[in-house]
Amino acid sequence: MARDKSTIRLTYVPRSHIQNKTAQSSDPQSTSASVSTPTPTQPIGPGTKQHLTRAYSPRSYWAGKSSVPLTGLHIANTTLFRKEAVTRQNNAFARIEKALGTDDLWKLPPRYGNMDREDMLLEGLRAARVTVNDGMDYGHKIFHQSNHEWALSNANPFGLTGLLFIPMLKLQCNPEQLAYWLPLAESGKIIGSYAQTELGHGSFVAGLQTTATLDKVTDEFVIHTPNLSAVKYWPGALGFASTHTIVIAQMIIDGKEYGTHSFVMQIRSLEDFKPLPDIELGDMGLKMSYNGTDNGYAIFHHVRIPRTNLLSRYNTVSKDGAYLADPLREKLLYGGMVGARSTIIRNSAFQLAQALTISTRYSAVRLQGQRSIPDEPAIMSYKLQHYRLLTLISKAYAILFASMAANVTYQKLLEAQARGDHASLPYVHMIMAGLKAWCTQTAADGAEDARKLCGGQGYLTMSGLPEIVASSTGCCTFEGENTVLWKQVSRYLMKGIAAPALPPDMAYICSSTATLLASYAGDAFLKPSVLVQVFEHRAAILVNEAYELLCAEEGSAVRAENTHAVALHVAARAHIELYILRAFIARVSASPAALQPVLTNLLLLSHLHTASSPLVPTSSSFTSFLTSTQLSTMRSLTNTLLEQLLPDAIALTDAWNFSDASLSSVLGCRDGDVYRRIMMWTRDLPINVHARENGGVLREGWEDYIKKFLGEGVVRSKL
Amino acid sequence: MARDKSTIRLTYVPRSHIQNKTAQSSDPQSTSASVSTPTPTQPIGPGTKQHLTRAYSPRSYWAGKSSVPLTGLHIANTTLFRKEAVTRQNNAFARIEKALGTDDLWKLPPRYGNMDREDMLLEGLRAARVTVNDGMDYGHKIFHQSNHEWALSNANPFGLTGLLFIPMLKLQCNPEQLAYWLPLAESGKIIGSYAQTELGHGSFVAGLQTTATLDKVTDEFVIHTPNLSAVKYWPGALGFASTHTIVIAQMIIDGKEYGTHSFVMQIRSLEDFKPLPDIELGDMGLKMSYNGTDNGYAIFHHVRIPRTNLLSRYNTVSKDGAYLADPLREKLLYGGMVGARSTIIRNSAFQLAQALTISTRYSAVRLQGQRSIPDEPAIMSYKLQHYRLLTLISKAYAILFASMAANVTYQKLLEAQARGDHASLPYVHMIMAGLKAWCTQTAADGAEDARKLCGGQGYLTMSGLPEIVASSTGCCTFEGENTVLWKQVSRYLMKGIAAPALPPDMAYICSSTATLLASYAGDAFLKPSVLVQVFEHRAAILVNEAYELLCAEEGSAVRAENTHAVALHVAARAHIELYILRAFIARVSASPAALQPVLTNLLLLSHLHTASSPLVPTSSSFTSFLTSTQLSTMRSLTNTLLEQLLPDAIALTDAWNFSDASLSSVLGCRDGDVYRRIMMWTRDLPINVHARENGGVLREGWEDYIKKFLGEGVVRSKL
Repeated sequence: MARDKSTIRLTYVPRSHIQNKTAQSSDPQSTSASVSTPTPTQPIGPGTKQHLTRAYSPRSYWAGKSSVPLTGLHIANTTLFRKEAVTRQNNAFARIEKALGTDDLWKLPPRYGNMDREDMLLEGLRAARVTVNDGMDYGHKIFHQSNHEWALSNANPFGLTGLLFIPMLKLQCNPEQLAYWLPLAESGKIIGSYAQTELGHGSFVAGLQTTATLDKVTDEFVIHTPNLSAVKYWPGALGFASTHTIVIAQMIIDGKEYGTHSFVMQIRSLEDFKPLPDIELGDMGLKMSYNGTDNGYAIFHHVRIPRTNLLSRYNTVSKDGAYLADPLREKLLYGGMVGARSTIIRNSAFQLAQALTISTRYSAVRLQGQRSIPDEPAIMSYKLQHYRLLTLISKAYAILFASMAANVTYQKLLEAQARGDHASLPYVHMIMAGLKAWCTQTAADGAEDARKLCGGQGYLTMSGLPEIVASSTGCCTFEGENTVLWKQVSRYLMKGIAAPALPPDMAYICSSTATLLASYAGDAFLKPSVLVQVFEHRAAILVNEAYELLCAEEGSAVRAENTHAVALHVAARAHIELYILRAFIARVSASPAALQPVLTNLLLLSHLHTASSPLVPTSSSFTSFLTSTQLSTMRSLTNTLLEQLLPDAIALTDAWNFSDASLSSVLGCRDGDVYRRIMMWTRDLPINVHARENGGVLREGWEDYIKKFLGEGVVRSKL
Repeated sequence: MARDKSTIRLTYVPRSHIQNKTAQSSDPQSTSASVSTPTPTQPIGPGTKQHLTRAYSPRSYWAGKSSVPLTGLHIANTTLFRKEAVTRQNNAFARIEKALGTDDLWKLPPRYGNMDREDMLLEGLRAARVTVNDGMDYGHKIFHQSNHEWALSNANPFGLTGLLFIPMLKLQCNPEQLAYWLPLAESGKIIGSYAQTELGHGSFVAGLQTTATLDKVTDEFVIHTPNLSAVKYWPGALGFASTHTIVIAQMIIDGKEYGTHSFVMQIRSLEDFKPLPDIELGDMGLKMSYNGTDNGYAIFHHVRIPRTNLLSRYNTVSKDGAYLADPLREKLLYGGMVGARSTIIRNSAFQLAQALTISTRYSAVRLQGQRSIPDEPAIMSYKLQHYRLLTLISKAYAILFASMAANVTYQKLLEAQARGDHASLPYVHMIMAGLKAWCTQTAADGAEDARKLCGGQGYLTMSGLPEIVASSTGCCTFEGENTVLWKQVSRYLMKGIAAPALPPDMAYICSSTATLLASYAGDAFLKPSVLVQVFEHRAAILVNEAYELLCAEEGSAVRAENTHAVALHVAARAHIELYILRAFIARVSASPAALQPVLTNLLLLSHLHTASSPLVPTSSSFTSFLTSTQLSTMRSLTNTLLEQLLPDAIALTDAWNFSDASLSSVLGCRDGDVYRRIMMWTRDLPINVHARENGGVLREGWEDYIKKFLGEGVVRSKL
């Protein structure tokens, strides 16, 4: 059975290094004696043997052409990704990569060398200084959202200043406070952190235990950690990098608790950087990711700060202890804080796209033989490879487009709130909560799947993928744990369905499209409007089912909600997936005409996959109203879409415009020259350099353990 | 709405440290000035404040009693986990934990300190020497399967000798070879590795490119790496620890290729440990996990070894180049190699159980408030917490029981093969392939979910969970990539359904139980026999569907198989899940009567969950023949089972008998004293110790980066 070559027609656009690597030898022995690092202008050439040439020269594999002109971020609509924005981003990354020395892709990136916890933090500080200064020097906020490798900017010890400290000052300071603090933070004269989470309290902010007690005699607040579970634990940059923090504490005046409030305070000396008296600060050690920053702990021992350090835009405490708060304080603060989730949602799209860029590029050059096929095709031609890659690519776009839609809604909320209109806060809060949960989980699972699609090499730290996976999955937990967020969506839904009038976004649960849906067949499912009906009907069924379960339950509402948590969770998910579908459709319509066909294919793939793939969790919720014939039609259409999209796989990931250096991946460089780079980086590893200096032996390993062990074996064998 | 206390009745059995910790103060300040490490006999006591007492004294929460007498490994049936085996295991772990100094749970384990790549490997060598010597000194093979922290034993630089090198010698050596090599390996006079995988070839073993060319003049084989993609890459212990390796190479005699064969060869000097001439060896750097070992690379430059180093049990090459092979060579070798998968399957159960032990214990002491509940209950009482934990616990048991069943079948195969009967090889191969894929994926996903269930603290490296997750997910890729393994199951199924007579394990695909199934309601689904019918019917539908899709496809079989890869994958999964159900039932029947009720509940939970939970992938395959009423009954029964099993959650994880030290988790010690231990370990981190020695400042961070950055800020603010 011969390999069907027609299934392999991906487009791979080779860039640098490809042109001039036909002459040299690729004998692995050649660099064995003297291990030198070739520069990009002096690459080790591909081999004379046929399989070598093929393995390292993707052009010979992907001779086709992309079916659409996808270049750079133009695919993602000009309204957000303007040409000037793309240029500004490219320039910023080029500057910092040069400054950090990561622009030479033949050199082992420092982070894959012999780093311990302290080295990682120092490396993070090095990158922080470069990126944050670049933003201030060139007047951009690119690194307010992500770091130089597309992790969230709180992966950077100075990044929290832009991500949370400054936004919180803007949200909560009165005019005098803002005039004082903002210039300090914006110019980099101080470094900020945000001390909210405690050892014993994360999601349940109202339960925080740090106290801020007013001392009327001295006109000060006394910040104190009353017990172990009140130790501030997890705040980024709190350990060894920030000079100031915004601490969230229970405010106590005259023995009365007023709930959690925000206080800005200095925590380290600007002279010698020592912690101020009665403050203990430290690092939390290694985490799955974010090891470039110092998530830390703080213990306060009756630390005194001026009364005026209470952030006082919406609440004030007078010298004599009188408390005054805007009646809408909570709503105003909450509305402002939803913004952080918006950043996380958007960034999760980029992190998933990063993983997919690496995995798709490697899949285009990695050969995979099997006994029944005489030649070794690229692994991309195998169905389960491109099925998973392309559906994940479609999800990355879905997340991006949903985040763009949600952000527009969020900006409208802020404008309305400024006019005193808070009506849409519950809706926006719900959408951001649900999208944060859906998008971060989809991105984390997708990144891990993209990693698995690279086989063993995806397990190498230098593939870049383990770090992306670990960093993505962190987003499922912080800034609102996803399980808790889903609960907030389902509460909104249950409140909405019980209300006299349905909220506008829930109107669909009353429309009956069952008869109409039963009539659809064949290509009808390629109409986005039909998919909307499918997703509406499914969400309506699940929301109604969950509500009926709650109503039928005896006992308290809390108990009923707990008993039927799974049904509520699934209903919440269906409501959010409907939002995502609508956002995708809207974005396609707003795109340039030339891009609409490929984006429509992605839109269809993403949602036919959700509805009909037997591998997707919650796909069973579609089977109650779609016939098996309809589902099998959807699966067949999915196959057709995959065939149509396959030639664009590389272009669809190139469109995200990641620089090679920002991917930090031995597998993911544009040139596709994977195996030579693996051996270059591997030989450059400090452990190997040290061993070579010692005749090929890891000195301590041999002397302290192996020699002794073998000696014990000799003794044992003589017993 | 008051918290319904009846939902919180878990049993938590506190052990050490609990008794004598009522007197001391828990003020976090108390250890702030002088940071000393308390010994187990001098613990920091719990607080006087009510919430502190609760947080650190699980006994006050879990006052109930376990409903069944589950202690130690007795739950897992006496046929495998005999009392003597448990004692031997406990003694071995106690010895090595004392030798390694990990037995003091108030001391930061070395692996969470300031380790770089080299330190990690040295720490692995230290543990390797202790564990492997213990096995040889005390005559046990406990660490032939796992290391001292329940990763597979190839996580250990000397572990591959027991895991692969010795078994391969036994499988492939002729008697003279065995008499020479086995005593060397078994006494620890040499250290072995197994060099199969190359840069360009993993799953497709036939495609390996390293050559072994016979030189008749010198009576030697010449081992050579002909190109970059032929570099041996990934073999454990190959970098810096092994003295000898079994290299898999294409054998060439007189210019003719004879396919891959195994050769044993020395690679390092036993005198000074230098690589032998013309061999380049090195480490691969950091991986997601397994960093205690030296997965490495090897490049051979025409290295000569005696002709007699060809392992020659089933194939010989004479001095004049005549090749002779047992006609059943491939079958015999293949049968023997399936054994490694059996070890991986079994170990994945233990790794999942480890993650669940940590997560369940922490869930029993971690409080989680919400606004609608006046008090803060343990997070375990929330449905989505114990729903996920208990279903995952049921999966860990399912994996364990399936591995036990498969192992019996495998042993029978080996006995049959010894008699020349190879008839059951395809079946055993298929079962091991499918179980390896199902079990490792279930364990890896489950471990990650267990990690997420610990919230932020599960993201801490010192929680032990990131390492378990990273180590488990590696098993999805090595020793048979899971996607490839599923393909082998579906090929067996398609071959079976097309055969004139169905294989016995596929007989169910002809039986029609549709009418019978339609008649079931209510508690009928609590009968294991009914569940078998459900799973049989589902598998039958999916296998038939996949076969029909293949038959309907035009073009080559390879193309058809590729087009319908998803349908084939789902069918394979259904066949394996049926096997797992049957194995679970058989194991329950063989268990002591007192344990049968709780094991039956686990069995039902596991499979009702698979069949009816909307959150499980492939659950949609049950909806085509079960009515929505039946599915909703199953979900309701699931809720009842969860209530019944909740009190046993701690006991069901205790039953796996992990020592606290082998969990290496700040969250998972039996005493439940989580927050005090977090602060103890955190303060002990080298980075914090170093900073304290420098007045609370990370010296290099301040001097090299922060001071400069702040200075630049001062300059900028004056511009």
